[in-house]
Amino acid sequence: MTAPDFQSWAAAGQQRIEAFLQRALPQPDIAPQRLHAAMRYAVLGAGKRVRPLLAYAAGELSQADPERVTVAGAAVELIHAYSLVHDDLPCMDDDVLRRGKPTCHVEFDEATALLVGDALQSLSFQLLGEYRLADDAKMQLDMIKLLAIAAGSRGMAGGQAIDLAAVGKTLSVPELEFMHIHKTGALIRAAAVLGGRCGNGLSEAEFAHVDTFAKAVGLAFQVVDDVLDAEAPTATLGKTAGKDAEQGKPTYVSAMGITQAKALAGELREQALKAIAPFGARGARLAQLADFIVLRQF
Amino acid sequence: MTAPDFQSWAAAGQQRIEAFLQRALPQPDIAPQRLHAAMRYAVLGAGKRVRPLLAYAAGELSQADPERVTVAGAAVELIHAYSLVHDDLPCMDDDVLRRGKPTCHVEFDEATALLVGDALQSLSFQLLGEYRLADDAKMQLDMIKLLAIAAGSRGMAGGQAIDLAAVGKTLSVPELEFMHIHKTGALIRAAAVLGGRCGNGLSEAEFAHVDTFAKAVGLAFQVVDDVLDAEAPTATLGKTAGKDAEQGKPTYVSAMGITQAKALAGELREQALKAIAPFGARGARLAQLADFIVLRQF
Repeated sequence: MTAPDFQSWAAAGQQRIEAFLQRALPQPDIAPQRLHAAMRYAVLGAGKRVRPLLAYAAGELSQADPERVTVAGAAVELIHAYSLVHDDLPCMDDDVLRRGKPTCHVEFDEATALLVGDALQSLSFQLLGEYRLADDAKMQLDMIKLLAIAAGSRGMAGGQAIDLAAVGKTLSVPELEFMHIHKTGALIRAAAVLGGRCGNGLSEAEFAHVDTFAKAVGLAFQVVDDVLDAEAPTATLGKTAGKDAEQGKPTYVSAMGITQAKALAGELREQALKAIAPFGARGARLAQLADFIVLRQF
Repeated sequence: MTAPDFQSWAAAGQQRIEAFLQRALPQPDIAPQRLHAAMRYAVLGAGKRVRPLLAYAAGELSQADPERVTVAGAAVELIHAYSLVHDDLPCMDDDVLRRGKPTCHVEFDEATALLVGDALQSLSFQLLGEYRLADDAKMQLDMIKLLAIAAGSRGMAGGQAIDLAAVGKTLSVPELEFMHIHKTGALIRAAAVLGGRCGNGLSEAEFAHVDTFAKAVGLAFQVVDDVLDAEAPTATLGKTAGKDAEQGKPTYVSAMGITQAKALAGELREQALKAIAPFGARGARLAQLADFIVLRQF
C-alpha cells in the first residue's frame, strides 16, 4: 500500500481535527449560549490547521496513536485560535477580518471575544488533563507544562508583548527573529513536539531534530506571512492585507525588502529539510509540510 | 501543642503563597520585561488569598504536604488574578481601582493587561504540570482537568458571560445564584477540592462535604460582596464602591434588599458549617474561614 499523497493526507487530518473540535467545544445550546456560539465561531470551519498537521506528522514518526495526536493537536489549535481572537481586539491589532469572516469581536462584541479567548485557553488544558495522551501520566504532565510555557509570557503571549513594543520602531533581522521565535515559533514547535510525545518511537536525539525542524519552519511561516501581507490582495489572504505596514509594524519585508525576504524563506526551508534528513524517507510528511507552509502562495 | 489562632494561621498561609508566587512569576528583568512587571503588579502584594487559604484548610483535613498545597493554591490564585485583570478592562467592567491600586490597564495599558491575563492563565497550568502535587500522576491530571473546567466557559468565564448578559436586567434570586455559582463559586470550590486532593486523607464522601461547604461559602462570599459594594466607602473596599448599581448590574441587594441579603449571607454560613459538621473539631479551620469570609465587614 502506498502512502496517500500529501493533499489527501492533509485533508484527512484536517477533517479529524475539525470533527474532534466540533465535539470538544460546548454545544451552542448549553448555557451560556452566546459564549459557546462565539467560541465555536472562532474555532470551527476555517484555518489551515498547520499546527495539528505538524503534530500528526511528528506523531507518525513516533508511531503514536492518531487519536491521541488528535487531542494534542486540537489543544494546540485552541491556543492558536484564542490568540487570534485576542490579537484582533481593538486594543491589540484592531482587525475586522479573519479567515474571510468578521473577527469575533465584530461578529459578537468585545467582552464576549475577550471571554472566548480566555475560555478557549482553559478548554485546551482541560483536554490535556481529560484524555490519555501518553502511556506514562508523568510524561503527560510534562506535555502540559511544555504547552503552557509555549503559550505563556516566555512563549506566544511574550512574543505578542514584544510585537506591541516594536510598533513604530525599526527592528534588525535578529530582533525580528527573537520576536517571531516567541510569537509564532513557540506554538509551532510545541505542536510538533507534543505530537511526537504521544508515541514512544523517537529518541531524545530525534526529538531534537524535530524541534530544530519546527523552529526553522516556524520562522519561515512568519517570513512568508510578511511577504503575503505585503503582496497578496485581502480577498486571497482572508484577512486585511497591508495591515502591518499601515500599523507601522516591523516585518521581514520592511527590514530586508521583498526579494531578500523570499530568499530567507527559501533558506529556512533548506534548514528545516536538513534537520530532518536523518529520518530519510520517514521524514517525508514533515518535508511536505515544510513545502506546504513555505511555498503556499509564491 | 495547641493549634495557632486563625489570624496567625491565615497570615502564615498568606506569606507562603506570596513567597511562592514571588518565585513562580518571571522576574521583571527577564524579557519581555514590561509584561513580566505587569504580571507581578497584578498578582503580588495584595489580595486576601481566600482561595489558597481554603486549599490549605482542606489540605490539612486531607493530611496533604503543605508545599504541594501551596502550588495548588497558587495556581488557583493565578486564575483568580487573571480574571480580575480582564474583568477590569474597559470592554468589561471598566474599573480603575483594584485592591487600592490603579487597575492593571490603567497602570500599564490595555493591550498589556490583556496579555497579562492570558499569560497568568498559562502560568497557572504550567505550575500544575511542573510540580508534583499528588502521589498518583493520573490524579494530578484529574486536578488539572478540574481547574480547567472551573476556569472555563462552564465555570468562571461562563459566569462572567452570564453577568454581562444580565446588565440592565432584573434577575430573580435563583438566576443570581446560577450566575454566581459559575462566576465566583466554581473557582472557590476548585480551591478547596484541589487542596484536599494534594493528600490522601479524605474519602469521596468527605470530599462531597468539602465541596458542599465550598459551594455555600462561595455564594456567601458573593452576597457579602454585594452588601459591601452597596454599603462600604471606596477607601475601605479598595475598589470603586457603588459600581454595581451604577452599571445596572443585578445584585443580591437589588434583588432582595440589604436586610434580606445580610440574612441570606448568615443562612449560607449556617449551611456551610452544617456541611462540615461530620468532621467535628478537624473542620475548625474551614469553619473559621467561613466566618472570615462572611463576617469580614459586618
